[in-house]
Amino acid sequence: MQTLKIIKIGGNIIDDQKALSDFLKQLATLEGPKILVHGGGKLASKMTERLEVPVKMHNGRRITDAETLDIVTMVYAGKINKTIVAQLQANQCNAIGLTGSDGNTIITEKRAINQIDFGFVGDVKAVNTDSLDLLIDNKITPVFCAITHDKKGQLLNTNADTIASELAIAFSKNFRTELYYCFEKNGVLKDVSDNDSVIETIDAKYYQKLIEEHIIADGMLPKLTNCFNAIEKNVSKVCVGKPSMLFQSDSIYTTLIK
Amino acid sequence: MQTLKIIKIGGNIIDDQKALSDFLKQLATLEGPKILVHGGGKLASKMTERLEVPVKMHNGRRITDAETLDIVTMVYAGKINKTIVAQLQANQCNAIGLTGSDGNTIITEKRAINQIDFGFVGDVKAVNTDSLDLLIDNKITPVFCAITHDKKGQLLNTNADTIASELAIAFSKNFRTELYYCFEKNGVLKDVSDNDSVIETIDAKYYQKLIEEHIIADGMLPKLTNCFNAIEKNVSKVCVGKPSMLFQSDSIYTTLIK
Repeated sequence: MQTLKIIKIGGNIIDDQKALSDFLKQLATLEGPKILVHGGGKLASKMTERLEVPVKMHNGRRITDAETLDIVTMVYAGKINKTIVAQLQANQCNAIGLTGSDGNTIITEKRAINQIDFGFVGDVKAVNTDSLDLLIDNKITPVFCAITHDKKGQLLNTNADTIASELAIAFSKNFRTELYYCFEKNGVLKDVSDNDSVIETIDAKYYQKLIEEHIIADGMLPKLTNCFNAIEKNVSKVCVGKPSMLFQSDSIYTTLIK
Repeated sequence: MQTLKIIKIGGNIIDDQKALSDFLKQLATLEGPKILVHGGGKLASKMTERLEVPVKMHNGRRITDAETLDIVTMVYAGKINKTIVAQLQANQCNAIGLTGSDGNTIITEKRAINQIDFGFVGDVKAVNTDSLDLLIDNKITPVFCAITHDKKGQLLNTNADTIASELAIAFSKNFRTELYYCFEKNGVLKDVSDNDSVIETIDAKYYQKLIEEHIIADGMLPKLTNCFNAIEKNVSKVCVGKPSMLFQSDSIYTTLIK
């Protein structure tokens, strides 16, 4: 079985032009089929501010109203996605930028309104690999932003970490899939202030312990939930760390196992 | 030889949600391979205004500085392109939205600075049909916005009429290509104030006469230059008129011939 790497990059790389450009140069040299998934960075918030659209939050989570959806669609699918694609092309990597609506690749459902209406946020219902298989078979690298659709004409905002894990799960039928969450830290840290305290391996049992001990909290919780969801559903390898984990054999990072 | 239709829609349809949605519903039913190219409409100008970016013009032509390029990339490749793709998908047409950087499909060159620097505007150097052939062969409809790249990492703004004609020319090697410029009028008019004065056929000789008589002027001039360029380069059919020309056999519109 061929290996397919699904690589998620977050805001910290996207907000730093030099870091992004260096990363994409290296990514272009990475052999074998790959899919890049990117988050949004600070550009969407900046644009929201410049356009004087009030930011609506609930318990630290952003509510995506119609105007905010327009902004994230413009920033994620327009500016960021196409900047990345153009740079990959300059480095001889044949990339195509996608939302979940392109090729009907990721179908989501607007989150049901319970106590709180999160607005135009989509939870993944299905990943359709037909068009993606076609691209990958022809050595084209899909580049996904965090916009999906409900197949009824509505674009929706979907967490980029979730998109990455759902893609990895969907492709694990036909590929040996590896999922890499790149961020600014060396991995999951025992001591959040010490970048050298990387926990190199976490299994499901140890994960529960780390949660109980409050070593894993805040933003790491949903990221690791996505990781373990992927492992449970046949993704072969799930790693969290700096982008260097993809390119340097002596990198230290966290690997999640069953 | 199979027929490939390249259809350009302009701002007037894009600015009218109902008209756009009706058009896309009909387009989805159009049989055979097709490529849609869309212009920008007023949304980019509105966004420029809201962001208080000064609009720079030279002889009625917009100058694309870095900030304007960001805005058109966001609006064309993000908001408009993805809205169109999501609506086509809702109508069971498997569309993928593209800039010229996606799949390295349209390579342009930043316009040389002579007397005036138009900024980040790209003139078409090459159309690469490899990725597009792949999509079309698999019944996927490419949807192009007016953003291209120079293959060196720079996105550029390119006239959508030109993108449509260059695509038609490039595909005429392997397809019988038909190029349709849809706009708000019934066709090229003898009397610009009378929508019933459609000139049904124009050849190159008659075209020169119409220019001399100032019947063709202003915005129609570059559009028809694109038309005749396409005809000269083996595009089988070039038409100008309302979108209904694509769907109704009794439509009246203008056909350009050699």
